[in-house]
This record gives sequence, structure tokens and C-alpha cells, in this order.
Amino acid sequence: MNENKYPLISNCRDLRFLTLRSLQSPQGRSRTGLYVSEGIRHLARAIKHNAAIESVFLDPSVLSNLFGRKLARRLRKRGIPSIRLSHQLYRDLTLAGEPQGIGAILKQRWTPLPNMRVEPNSLWLAVESIESPGNLGTMIRTAEAAGVTRTFILSPDCDPYDPGTVRATMGSLFSQMLVKCSPREFVHWARLNGVAIAASSPAGLMDYKDLHYRFPAIIVIGSEKRGLSEQVLEAANFVVRIPMYGGCDSINAAVAAGVLLFEMASQRLDHNP
Amino acid sequence: MNENKYPLISNCRDLRFLTLRSLQSPQGRSRTGLYVSEGIRHLARAIKHNAAIESVFLDPSVLSNLFGRKLARRLRKRGIPSIRLSHQLYRDLTLAGEPQGIGAILKQRWTPLPNMRVEPNSLWLAVESIESPGNLGTMIRTAEAAGVTRTFILSPDCDPYDPGTVRATMGSLFSQMLVKCSPREFVHWARLNGVAIAASSPAGLMDYKDLHYRFPAIIVIGSEKRGLSEQVLEAANFVVRIPMYGGCDSINAAVAAGVLLFEMASQRLDHNP
Repeated sequence: MNENKYPLISNCRDLRFLTLRSLQSPQGRSRTGLYVSEGIRHLARAIKHNAAIESVFLDPSVLSNLFGRKLARRLRKRGIPSIRLSHQLYRDLTLAGEPQGIGAILKQRWTPLPNMRVEPNSLWLAVESIESPGNLGTMIRTAEAAGVTRTFILSPDCDPYDPGTVRATMGSLFSQMLVKCSPREFVHWARLNGVAIAASSPAGLMDYKDLHYRFPAIIVIGSEKRGLSEQVLEAANFVVRIPMYGGCDSINAAVAAGVLLFEMASQRLDHNP
Repeated sequence: MNENKYPLISNCRDLRFLTLRSLQSPQGRSRTGLYVSEGIRHLARAIKHNAAIESVFLDPSVLSNLFGRKLARRLRKRGIPSIRLSHQLYRDLTLAGEPQGIGAILKQRWTPLPNMRVEPNSLWLAVESIESPGNLGTMIRTAEAAGVTRTFILSPDCDPYDPGTVRATMGSLFSQMLVKCSPREFVHWARLNGVAIAASSPAGLMDYKDLHYRFPAIIVIGSEKRGLSEQVLEAANFVVRIPMYGGCDSINAAVAAGVLLFEMASQRLDHNP
């Protein structure tokens, strides 16, 4: 890798580094509409899904993977600004236990609610409020695996572009159209478009396996601690329960999302619209 | 709460504090056979399951919850040594974002493999090697919720008593009989006792939903990065696949465990031994 083609930044007060670091905070992300993603797999999926890559940052002392180096060269040739960070600055930026030496600044992409096209067989995910960025990321990764292509974010505090979330999606973030709206707008939109809202709650009257889901459908997941709001529960077409044994009264929110999404995905396969 | 009944420790070189802190490390835990658990819910479940509580530590400035204070009194009356830690020392000990001001040192409990009694309808979990303590804890929590009462640990590097694991189990750790053995001993034992080994792998030939599981059964989960070892895959009676959509080639290991365990749990309900 011809490292001299990439300007080196080793001063922690360099503006470009400060920009990168500011994207760790919600304020920095909302002010700029940008976010950061680190890792070869993530970057490869970003390219595949035509994500809007603004610039690339590298630590060539760590980026030994040939495929990763090829990605870096390809992006530089496309004219995307690429910089080298000193080992220490790169390390300061990433949450990864083993950083891979390549990352990017990207433009956030939000799809306006009215642009969402509903198909008879749609299966989507909505997240009302998830406290843990890792849980949210794991949900988005699981959603893609279950065939979901749209994720709705119903709370301003819930940020799919948080670095912990981006990381936990393992690149699935780029596969999703993301929509941000209030629970009220969401409920209104779902009714208007004939999309069934499926919610899960320990108080749900039906076992999640006994229900024959109607499609198009959207499953709504609530907060780890408080579950779903009354507003969403009341508007739901179905409220299902995951039965629990032992002394357990709850499971991890991302695991719950996975159990429900894979059940619905399997029923969708048998479903003829 | 009569705080004077609890000796106060505020010196970070106090031997009792050093003992507590040493249990954060694998060496400290394996040398003593002890571990630490923090939080009211955890302690309540430890008591319910007759876990072997050696001593209790408190931070009365944080322990405002009445139920938590009652637990502390009850344990002290039973003669369990209880100490107060200064706010700073308590904070140093716990991973919790919002520590609850009460925790315990407990004795690890391992059940010898030959003591495992198999019943016709048993559904158990085995973990070959999970790198993330949080993932392992989430799996144990999910296992309890799916009706599992025994968890097998097939790798010496995989420690259910790691503080991150204990925390993620949300108290479900105390519901499980834990067995530690090698994959080889595990396979031998399962064959001898007629327990079906169900494994999951992206290369599995059957969709996990199409299989009619045979019970008693044990589901084996492999490492997040490498999956299951050849040895376990070859010995498995069933190798199932979780079908994936999009560009996803894997889901989070704890989510995968949840999807499989809840499918098996539901089939078990319909199953007459």
C-alpha cells in the first residue's frame, strides 16, 4: 500500500480528527448528519449498498488484510478523500476490541414516512425505544437476517447511527431503509396503509406461535425496562406473548425481537398475498 | 437501615476489598471457587435458589430500595458476614451503569457430569465456546426462559461466573445446574444416555423449523466467530440451519440460541415422551 498517497494526521487537535471524534456524540451526529463506521466488513457492505461515503480513514500499520487494502485503493481512486491516522488516534476512535485499520465517515440516510411503499408481503421492524446501542444494532442485524428491509425508529433518543449500534449491526445497517417518526405518526401511517402492527408484551393474550400473522406486518419492540408505551399497545392489531418458564419474567430485547421476527418470517414464506 | 451493624471498608488495600476485587479475574475465581454478583434482583434470585452466599457487601448510600434493605437485614440475621464499602470502592467493583448498592460473594457450584439425571422430555443447553461474557449471560437467561434447567460448558475459557456473564443472566444463572466437561466427555455422555445432540451451522441441511426434534435433547452453540468444532458437528444427531435473508451470513450467537431454544421448547410442549 502506497502510504504516501494518504495525508497523515497525528495531532489530536487536527480539525479532521476532531470532526471524526465529534461523530461519537449524538450532538456531533445530529449537527452534521454524518456518522462513522469501522471495519472491513462494514465498509464492504456500505459500498455494496451504495451508502454515501464521505471520506475514509486508515491505520496502515493495522490494515494488513489484502481485501481491506483493495477497498481503500478503490475508494481513493473514486476520489473519496482518504487520510491516515496515527496508531494512537485511530485507537482512540474505535470501540472495536481488534480494530481493522479502515473506517469511513458516511452520510446518514433517512427515508420520509410518506415514501414508504407497502407491499402485500412486507415484514418490517419498528423500535419504540431501546436504551442499549448494542441491543439496537443486534436487532437491526437480526431483522436483515429475517428478511426485513425497513426499520422504523419511533424515539428521538434511539439512534441507529450511534457507534455502538453501527458496530453491532455488523454491516446490516446499510441494508435497511430507515424511517424516523413519532409513535403517533407511525400508528396513523400503519392504519392508512393497511399494515398490521404486531406488538409483544408479557400481558399479551396470545402465544406468539399460535397467531397467524397477517401481512403486510410490522413488529414493534419496546424499551428493555418499560416495554411498549400504552399508545402503541392500544393501537396494535395483535399483542402476542413469548411464554416464559422458570423464574424469568423477561428476555433480552434483541433475543425477543429475533424469536418473533423468525416466527413471522417463516409464516410469511407460507403466506400467499 | 442501621448502618453501624456493618463494618465499613474505605481503604482500597483492605484485604476484604482485595478479595472482592480479585474475583473479577479468572485466576481469582478459579483459585477460590468464588464469584461476585451485584444487584437486588440477582440477590433475591440467589436466595430463592439456595445459592451458597458467603458474604454480602453494601453501599448504604445507594441502597434506597426497601426490598433490597430487607434482603440485607435478612442475610445478616442468618449470620452471613456483611460489610459496607465506601461509595468509591463499591463503584470500582461493579460493571453496572446504575449500581444498586448490594451484592454478594457466592460459591461456584458445578455438578459432576455423571450426576446429571436425564428425563424423557429434557431440553438442555451446551455452550462450546463463547467469547463474549455478555452473550453467554444472555444465552443462560434465554435458556431459563425456554424451560432449560441445565447448562453444559464445554470450554475451560468459557466462564459463567465472569462478572459480565453473571450480570447479563439477570439472575437466571442461579436457576441452572452447571456442568463443565470436555466436548469429548460431553459427546460420550450424550450417546450413553440417549440424549439427542442438536447443533446449528450455516452448513446445516435442514431448516431449524422443519425438524421434529427428538427429546431428551441438548442444543449446542459454538463460538461467535468460528462456530462449532468439527468434533461436535460430527457427533451431532441433527445439524440445523437458521435461514438468512439479505446479505447476512450470521446472526448474534445469543439471538441464534434464542430462536432455536424457543422452537424446541414449543415442540417439547407438544411432545409426549
